[in-house]
Amino acid sequence: MFLAKIHVLLKPTVNDPQGLTIARALGRLGFDAVDAVRAGKYFEVQIQRSDEATAEQDVKAMCEKLLSNPVIETFTYELELV
Amino acid sequence: MFLAKIHVLLKPTVNDPQGLTIARALGRLGFDAVDAVRAGKYFEVQIQRSDEATAEQDVKAMCEKLLSNPVIETFTYELELV
Repeated sequence: MFLAKIHVLLKPTVNDPQGLTIARALGRLGFDAVDAVRAGKYFEVQIQRSDEATAEQDVKAMCEKLLSNPVIETFTYELELV
Repeated sequence: MFLAKIHVLLKPTVNDPQGLTIARALGRLGFDAVDAVRAGKYFEVQIQRSDEATAEQDVKAMCEKLLSNPVIETFTYELELV
């Protein structure tokens, strides 16, 4: 079985209002050293596969079809044998 | 300057309706090998500090005060010099 750790972030050129709001809130809380924040999503998906190539194919397909919006987001993933 | 990569996940004992919904949706899309999904948040925070200890102190404090809800969530982070 594999555990896929998937990160979905807005593309660098896309405005990130959630990140901007968090950065401002951190500033108001006294975290003066905070420069910028990007907010994204994180998924841990357990995949019942015995070979890594098939699991990786699954992960790529599910990111493209459901977990990310390829127009404005990018995804990265790591696969771990568990 | 440091880049903090922060993961916030619901504690394992806390019900994760978002993850359950995603797992069901993936099943309906034909991803039969998907066993379970946990959904969380991911933040990249740029911190203007020169020493790692202070940056780490900042990250812990901001996770506890704003980025996570310690009652139901846990956080992990990595610090990278950039």
